[in-house]
Amino acid sequence: MDRGKLNALTDVEGTTVGHVTLLHGEPPDPFAVRTGVTAILPHGGDLFREKVEAAVHVINGFGKSLGLLQLAELGEIESPILLTGTLNVFRVADALLDIAAEGNPGLSSLNPVVCECNDGYLSHGLSRPAGKAEVLKAIREARSGAIAEGSVGAGTGMSGLGYKAGIGTSSRLLPKDQGGYTVGTLVLMNTGAAGDLLIDGVPVGRVLAERDAGGHAPRTADSAPGSIIVVIATDAPLSSRQLGRVAGRAVFGLARTGAKGPHGSGDIVLAFSTTARHPARIHERIPEERLTAFFDATEEATEEAIIRSILLAATVRGRDGNAAVSIPIAEVARVIGKYRNAL
Amino acid sequence: MDRGKLNALTDVEGTTVGHVTLLHGEPPDPFAVRTGVTAILPHGGDLFREKVEAAVHVINGFGKSLGLLQLAELGEIESPILLTGTLNVFRVADALLDIAAEGNPGLSSLNPVVCECNDGYLSHGLSRPAGKAEVLKAIREARSGAIAEGSVGAGTGMSGLGYKAGIGTSSRLLPKDQGGYTVGTLVLMNTGAAGDLLIDGVPVGRVLAERDAGGHAPRTADSAPGSIIVVIATDAPLSSRQLGRVAGRAVFGLARTGAKGPHGSGDIVLAFSTTARHPARIHERIPEERLTAFFDATEEATEEAIIRSILLAATVRGRDGNAAVSIPIAEVARVIGKYRNAL
Amino acid sequence: MDRGKLNALTDVEGTTVGHVTLLHGEPPDPFAVRTGVTAILPHGGDLFREKVEAAVHVINGFGKSLGLLQLAELGEIESPILLTGTLNVFRVADALLDIAAEGNPGLSSLNPVVCECNDGYLSHGLSRPAGKAEVLKAIREARSGAIAEGSVGAGTGMSGLGYKAGIGTSSRLLPKDQGGYTVGTLVLMNTGAAGDLLIDGVPVGRVLAERDAGGHAPRTADSAPGSIIVVIATDAPLSSRQLGRVAGRAVFGLARTGAKGPHGSGDIVLAFSTTARHPARIHERIPEERLTAFFDATEEATEEAIIRSILLAATVRGRDGNAAVSIPIAEVARVIGKYRNAL
Amino acid sequence: MDRGKLNALTDVEGTTVGHVTLLHGEPPDPFAVRTGVTAILPHGGDLFREKVEAAVHVINGFGKSLGLLQLAELGEIESPILLTGTLNVFRVADALLDIAAEGNPGLSSLNPVVCECNDGYLSHGLSRPAGKAEVLKAIREARSGAIAEGSVGAGTGMSGLGYKAGIGTSSRLLPKDQGGYTVGTLVLMNTGAAGDLLIDGVPVGRVLAERDAGGHAPRTADSAPGSIIVVIATDAPLSSRQLGRVAGRAVFGLARTGAKGPHGSGDIVLAFSTTARHPARIHERIPEERLTAFFDATEEATEEAIIRSILLAATVRGRDGNAAVSIPIAEVARVIGKYRNAL
Repeated sequence: MDRGKLNALTDVEGTTVGHVTLLHGEPPDPFAVRTGVTAILPHGGDLFREKVEAAVHVINGFGKSLGLLQLAELGEIESPILLTGTLNVFRVADALLDIAAEGNPGLSSLNPVVCECNDGYLSHGLSRPAGKAEVLKAIREARSGAIAEGSVGAGTGMSGLGYKAGIGTSSRLLPKDQGGYTVGTLVLMNTGAAGDLLIDGVPVGRVLAERDAGGHAPRTADSAPGSIIVVIATDAPLSSRQLGRVAGRAVFGLARTGAKGPHGSGDIVLAFSTTARHPARIHERIPEERLTAFFDATEEATEEAIIRSILLAATVRGRDGNAAVSIPIAEVARVIGKYRNAL
Repeated sequence: MDRGKLNALTDVEGTTVGHVTLLHGEPPDPFAVRTGVTAILPHGGDLFREKVEAAVHVINGFGKSLGLLQLAELGEIESPILLTGTLNVFRVADALLDIAAEGNPGLSSLNPVVCECNDGYLSHGLSRPAGKAEVLKAIREARSGAIAEGSVGAGTGMSGLGYKAGIGTSSRLLPKDQGGYTVGTLVLMNTGAAGDLLIDGVPVGRVLAERDAGGHAPRTADSAPGSIIVVIATDAPLSSRQLGRVAGRAVFGLARTGAKGPHGSGDIVLAFSTTARHPARIHERIPEERLTAFFDATEEATEEAIIRSILLAATVRGRDGNAAVSIPIAEVARVIGKYRNAL
Repeated sequence: MDRGKLNALTDVEGTTVGHVTLLHGEPPDPFAVRTGVTAILPHGGDLFREKVEAAVHVINGFGKSLGLLQLAELGEIESPILLTGTLNVFRVADALLDIAAEGNPGLSSLNPVVCECNDGYLSHGLSRPAGKAEVLKAIREARSGAIAEGSVGAGTGMSGLGYKAGIGTSSRLLPKDQGGYTVGTLVLMNTGAAGDLLIDGVPVGRVLAERDAGGHAPRTADSAPGSIIVVIATDAPLSSRQLGRVAGRAVFGLARTGAKGPHGSGDIVLAFSTTARHPARIHERIPEERLTAFFDATEEATEEAIIRSILLAATVRGRDGNAAVSIPIAEVARVIGKYRNAL
Repeated sequence: MDRGKLNALTDVEGTTVGHVTLLHGEPPDPFAVRTGVTAILPHGGDLFREKVEAAVHVINGFGKSLGLLQLAELGEIESPILLTGTLNVFRVADALLDIAAEGNPGLSSLNPVVCECNDGYLSHGLSRPAGKAEVLKAIREARSGAIAEGSVGAGTGMSGLGYKAGIGTSSRLLPKDQGGYTVGTLVLMNTGAAGDLLIDGVPVGRVLAERDAGGHAPRTADSAPGSIIVVIATDAPLSSRQLGRVAGRAVFGLARTGAKGPHGSGDIVLAFSTTARHPARIHERIPEERLTAFFDATEEATEEAIIRSILLAATVRGRDGNAAVSIPIAEVARVIGKYRNAL
């Protein structure tokens, strides 16, 4: 399937993404901070007044993501989607209340959607440095156009499949005869064991690990439980039930990267439709049998976003001297090249 | 079924409850605060190390309760259960991290369970006055023994079924031939429309409303969406799946009080077993067909706890001069008495 | 809320109901049959081609109802809804395939929705007398207009709350300012213990049981696990997610009749919308906050349908001489009358 | 992870599998039958009296599998697990009632678990040839020891990933330090598009498809919606909640074979524990963090079982001259060999 122009979540018209990266302290400071906030705005309007149809799919519920209860009941998101480090979720949600209150002093209810992975290997977990200023900045930084990937925003301190990881994004365009809709994904990637990485089926992780075993240190000692957040956007008028089915396909993309969904990995998928902003489109319906194209797009774009979150992540050294090291791109290219030639 | 000695959640051995009531400002101050925190400690040990088997049942998911995702996945609670006003949940959860960190500076993961109802009719919602000091106090105040009910702790600003409401509790003892186990419930009651109150089937709400219509003002003008939190404790060795079935019966008790579960009422039920603290009991199993007694106990105790949350609640006047008025006990007694005599 | 013209499921335009009652053998024949089939046709068109938006809500999943998996995934019903006795569900579903095949010899997939309660107290369970002829007859008998209630169709062998029960129906009209939509319910009632019956809050069951204890035999010795099926229809353009929320309110009506949801009672609620047949209406949306009126209608109509299923049920004597006896209507009226006078 | 002695579901002690293969008519007879029944007996005792702890995980609920409602509520299976063609499920379930009744004439409740895929491409769907005799034979044929795979039993008419498929099985042994438990899987494989097959990451399907495009006919023209049933057995004392988490990992194995979960593929996973038959083991508990090894075992064994279901399936020609052709094993070996040499 074709990629969108930017190969990014922001190929979905109106959806924007902003990052704030938070770096404090130098290794081996045990209180060093390597974290951040990523804000996804489904559209540029008032999200509380123009809520977007949405769904959540839980691959593994060992996680602290906020706002999913109401999202599941009402089938909608009414706030920016904020991503950050695990223990910082409550401050981020509370900050969003402060921000919302500025425009609405009588505010009595708001359902912040804040998702998290645990970046405690690189960043001091209890620091929780993201508050109102940081959340506001992430929201204000939100842009359409290309998205910074890798060790940025909420991805700053994340690792996965044995290497530094973080933010990745990708998109797919459905064929014209399937409506020509756009499906974009953005992942916050922090799961998967060293040696398991697959790229387009090639066991890159295993090959590199075997080479490393001949003298090289393991790349990342992070044995923390991991997690992944996948956010899927589309401009198609899918109902929340249909978005739930779409969200359920992200696991196919995740599995194809070699990740295995261990006990401690909190793996959450959100999906939303921007149709609320397109009054002409709001009454369209996508016949159920045409969801297969959305499923395929989701699987492909999720797999690619995860791989990008690793390929584009710069090495980060954090608290106590812990480090998560970039994947060696040249060697990845070499391994894949040998394999392609063989077929 | 017989009541426990205290007719309270604390009849379940080891379970304790603490309240902090927060009152600031005088009517008609629009920023007046009438809120609080109620802490339920499933047992007196280290809850993170000795997690309790638990389940959640969602009657209506329009709510912001925290920690339910992981609770559902892992079938356990690893923190105190904290109840408070809607917009204060994030600060309360964050405060719990600070408190937990004191005993465990390397803390990297904790799943706070914080549930809420909206007390914004009486209390300025954006104030969020419950922070670390208040949460710590509620936990430290937690006691076995009798529980203060009505307009106290998280119940301070709540209303339901047309009257002031708040905290209520009740318990039941299973017959000896059903194991003699204890089931206790505690409710944070904030739902139901004026005129709908039923007490033991008697339409007390309707009778009082008709009388009031003859010249009296409506008792409570709160038309906010409401909500109810029900917490169920037992010393029986129920699995999380079984606790989920038990939790699902609270709605029968709720319905019998006249509440109707409108769109905006976030109605959440938690259930936990204290068996983790009773090594001799941990390997017992309750045969599935014996759950019926637990279901009956849950329904009875939930209904009674809700009624108590109203009967025991003192009038509270709060922000902007809003007031939620106590139910007139003498008239309730008179209506019920007439009815009983008739049968 | 006002009732519909017929106070029946069939007040929803286009929805029809047909019964086949099956009686074989005379007491005390252990193989006597007292069962039947009730068919609900959401509309008069081709249900497979014009599927109806639908949802299922499980109060208690101890049951053998068929077709719910696909109903939940796709949010639609594509067959008549058939009700019958527990062990007969498979033959009824298979019969529906035969019937569907007649009009469509290349049929390769169909999702029959067949729900059940256990009428084994009066009817020999293993007999399974409902096959193709009976199912076809029930479908062909389906009519708009008034619905036979009580000991008829699938209700023939059912009991509940200590008395003979069976089929009951009721409906409500939303106020004009809520859209003027119709909500109809039909129940197959077979749950609840003797002595627990409440009618409009009056403990009729308890009063009659106390009287009976003074010399009268218990009315029904059926101690089988029970169950209830509730079917909700509406002409409002609710999405499957919204219909799921509506279905979730039937338990409020059930609870108010005194039923308690014991372990062995399989309590299932279906809800569907006939909008598929009203092209002009299919693109309407019901704002979420307007669901409260649908919830209220569902609760009221479900409660009333259950009460009617008992009040209208004729005594049935079945296998082994077992009998389920009609409630004594005159005494019910007397008890309720005394109570009303008292208030 | 090591395989069990037989690399089969039957490595789980006590679990047995039986097949009945049903072949009637010769192509191009439109009524030709190419179907069957596969019976899985969790243990050799009375399954109704000694129910096994169990769970279901729904990857995609577009399917007609029976018995899942009660399985989910009660967390147990009380019957053989029967697999067959889609439209035959009701007759198979009804046959099981007849069989159960022979040993228990007062039978009033039984929850048959019957799962299905659609073999209508090769077998005339409406024929439904599996009745009491066939089900009884499958149960009586059930054996420990090696399991016939490929085009046998319920797998007779199934296809997947562009080739003939059917039954496949595999197993894994947890390391001694993880308890040494066994995890076995058995799949009924009928999903996946031509060209998508991956074997250990190698895009075998694509390579063969490209070769075929140079002159060869497509291998299987089956464009039906597909489906897969995965059955997981273990001798570990997992609770139903834990088995549900285990079942949720089968999708990782499925995804790694190249299957994509399209709209019409009903993908269902069952998991059960045989601990009920090992009284010494019934009170053990597997700490939650040790589930990761079960997850890994499930993913590996599911992936391998799916691949085996294709590699071991003989070509079958069925109704209307439709054919599903075996994968060319020698070419598969050649493609994989080239790839391995390259790395």
